[in-house]
Amino acid sequence: MAQQGTVSGARRPRVVIVGAGFGGLEAARSLAHAAAEVVVIDAKNHHTFQPLLYQVATAALSPAAIAWPIRHLLKGQANAQVLMTRVLGVDAAANEVTTEGGPIAYDQLVIAAGAAHSYFGHDAWEPFAPGLKTLEDALDIRRRILSAFERAELAGESETAPGWTTFVVVGGGPTGVELAGAIAEIARDALKSEFHHIDPAASRILLVEAGPRILPTFPDRLAADAARRLARYGVEVMTGAKVVDIDAAGVTLEGGRIAAATVLWAAGVRAGALTAGLPSEHDRVGRARVAADLSLPDHPEIFVIGDGAAVTSPGGAPIPGIAPAAKQMGAYVGQLIARRLSGRLPPPPFRYRHAGDLATVGRGAAVVKLGALELTGFPGWLFWGLIHVYFLIGLRARFLVALDWLWSYVTYQRGARLITGT
Amino acid sequence: MAQQGTVSGARRPRVVIVGAGFGGLEAARSLAHAAAEVVVIDAKNHHTFQPLLYQVATAALSPAAIAWPIRHLLKGQANAQVLMTRVLGVDAAANEVTTEGGPIAYDQLVIAAGAAHSYFGHDAWEPFAPGLKTLEDALDIRRRILSAFERAELAGESETAPGWTTFVVVGGGPTGVELAGAIAEIARDALKSEFHHIDPAASRILLVEAGPRILPTFPDRLAADAARRLARYGVEVMTGAKVVDIDAAGVTLEGGRIAAATVLWAAGVRAGALTAGLPSEHDRVGRARVAADLSLPDHPEIFVIGDGAAVTSPGGAPIPGIAPAAKQMGAYVGQLIARRLSGRLPPPPFRYRHAGDLATVGRGAAVVKLGALELTGFPGWLFWGLIHVYFLIGLRARFLVALDWLWSYVTYQRGARLITGT
Repeated sequence: MAQQGTVSGARRPRVVIVGAGFGGLEAARSLAHAAAEVVVIDAKNHHTFQPLLYQVATAALSPAAIAWPIRHLLKGQANAQVLMTRVLGVDAAANEVTTEGGPIAYDQLVIAAGAAHSYFGHDAWEPFAPGLKTLEDALDIRRRILSAFERAELAGESETAPGWTTFVVVGGGPTGVELAGAIAEIARDALKSEFHHIDPAASRILLVEAGPRILPTFPDRLAADAARRLARYGVEVMTGAKVVDIDAAGVTLEGGRIAAATVLWAAGVRAGALTAGLPSEHDRVGRARVAADLSLPDHPEIFVIGDGAAVTSPGGAPIPGIAPAAKQMGAYVGQLIARRLSGRLPPPPFRYRHAGDLATVGRGAAVVKLGALELTGFPGWLFWGLIHVYFLIGLRARFLVALDWLWSYVTYQRGARLITGT
Repeated sequence: MAQQGTVSGARRPRVVIVGAGFGGLEAARSLAHAAAEVVVIDAKNHHTFQPLLYQVATAALSPAAIAWPIRHLLKGQANAQVLMTRVLGVDAAANEVTTEGGPIAYDQLVIAAGAAHSYFGHDAWEPFAPGLKTLEDALDIRRRILSAFERAELAGESETAPGWTTFVVVGGGPTGVELAGAIAEIARDALKSEFHHIDPAASRILLVEAGPRILPTFPDRLAADAARRLARYGVEVMTGAKVVDIDAAGVTLEGGRIAAATVLWAAGVRAGALTAGLPSEHDRVGRARVAADLSLPDHPEIFVIGDGAAVTSPGGAPIPGIAPAAKQMGAYVGQLIARRLSGRLPPPPFRYRHAGDLATVGRGAAVVKLGALELTGFPGWLFWGLIHVYFLIGLRARFLVALDWLWSYVTYQRGARLITGT
């Protein structure tokens, strides 16, 4: 690694940030004026706007509409550099991260490595029920959804095709609700009048939730509104339905079997191997238990932020695994490190401010809970759209995504109905 | 296959069209008012606008900007249906095509299966020097180009990294010229100021052509203009340079060795296995020799159009493998079959009308030869852009592509700089 030789020589403390998601990127930006060398490491070349991944997975947006090269985003920050490589582990004794490209030394380390899917001990389900965390996941899900209709058309009505146009989404949180609603839009609207041997509108779309209701983090009234709307779009919402098994032909629930060629997983997350391997205590999903300043109790120079951090707000409520939480942690840690490096007092303990919850529920509808504000239906959708366009990076992305949504809304079409990678 | 049972019963003659490129799609559309059942079969779900594939490969456009679901394009045509499956062969004795989804019977058959890359007997070169025919090819090439810079940055200046930022494009036709010019744009403009350990502008980009000059189908003056402009952008144009070997570390020419991590193939095409296996004579690149009406001499019910057809214009010149030629053949065969099915006289022999040749040569420049009209530089580029936007399908694609080009021109950026699929 050149970095070690060439850059350590500069004698400025090096802050290594692993992961350029919402948390890592925010941490890097908060260090823009710090007397530090900031090294951002990510296995991908792009930052992904995860809240809209489900729209790539359901053929509404192209990957490039919601992802940007990390080094382009940090181009204007003179003290930051970006390396694309996979981080394999942390050697806390040697103050080094080991990567596929060799070891990289750090003075301060921020682990912002995000979350992976958790199949609750049933890793064998993964190939049959992919989750949605990366652009690759989204393109894989897009391929599965669109291919299911093509295979059914090819087989035709004469053959029994059990479950080829049955779609099961496991997990009734925002991602599951958004996926199920968008698949219903595809089946009912976008594919209308394009098939000869099947009727896509007759597809079954099931949203399966083990708990007593969908959208558990939302107020009752909003969750009930979402469930009603999903039902109206033809999504069968099954609550209290526990998954016992998943295979290539469908899903087995405690109450019975659903034949389905396409099963998607939106039920559980856990911390990735990197976070789970850190020298600290972990909670049951592998997240590192951090101190009030988000550092590891025995390693004040190592911070964990975002989905990998098990931190409880001073108020007592756990912090949700959403973009605003990761960003707040990133900003906090960046500021803390900047103060530490310049000898100033540390900031007070991290305090999460929950802004609210949003989720779309199919064509032109969303549920929004923002402080005292509660919206449903079309007003909710407009608000949801404005918020998401606002948080996209760059005028170009905002304009293109807004345009794509307007076009989809007017024409009932989807802009990226491609099966690629086969 | 349901098609055979359910649809043969309708008793209308069935025209099967294999491949939904420019030729196949045009043939299907020409049969819109024929008393026939039209079945379009393609292994992909999308029609690809191949002339702009190099822009996907060089991160300027997203796949969805230049590809559309075939069944969406034929949605309005009541007598047409689309099946997504791979065609494995033609059983001319049984009047059936065999597919991965089972056999499909035909009364009239149009093979419009396009071309594959030809490595002139050196198929071992293919993994090291991919060609550009499909969206998957384009995304693979995009990944290779962008990853080369990332790997070089990771290794840093201290390590010798011979050829990591050397790009060799083999073949000086329009595709090779466009790829080389666009890679130069990436290296000189789009990546500027984003790397710390390498200078992308110092990359070597070589365009290697075995013949005496690039763009052999263009007039001398235009080819010379293109070569001059490429040189000005820093592309080393090597003519009379014969490739002897390609491996993971570079290219061996008759005159010497070039270390290069990225080699792209734009040198030769041949017909695919399906066309090469048809019951007819073939030329040396596997194209089927067809009669003056584009049918096989012994099988008047089987037609071959587009890149797979070896046909000589009545004038004597061979027909180039470009979109307008495929479209003209598709329209001709569609019309011929429609006449045949309604008992009318056949049209006169197929006659190719060559409209012209166009190729971009990097940022804001193109060479255009259209009848007496010859354009170079910026006027050529404007004309090239207008023509290509005009031929894109749908207002949405035209608008988005035009906007992307305008944005790229103004900002020097590329809209889809993503490494995916790793």
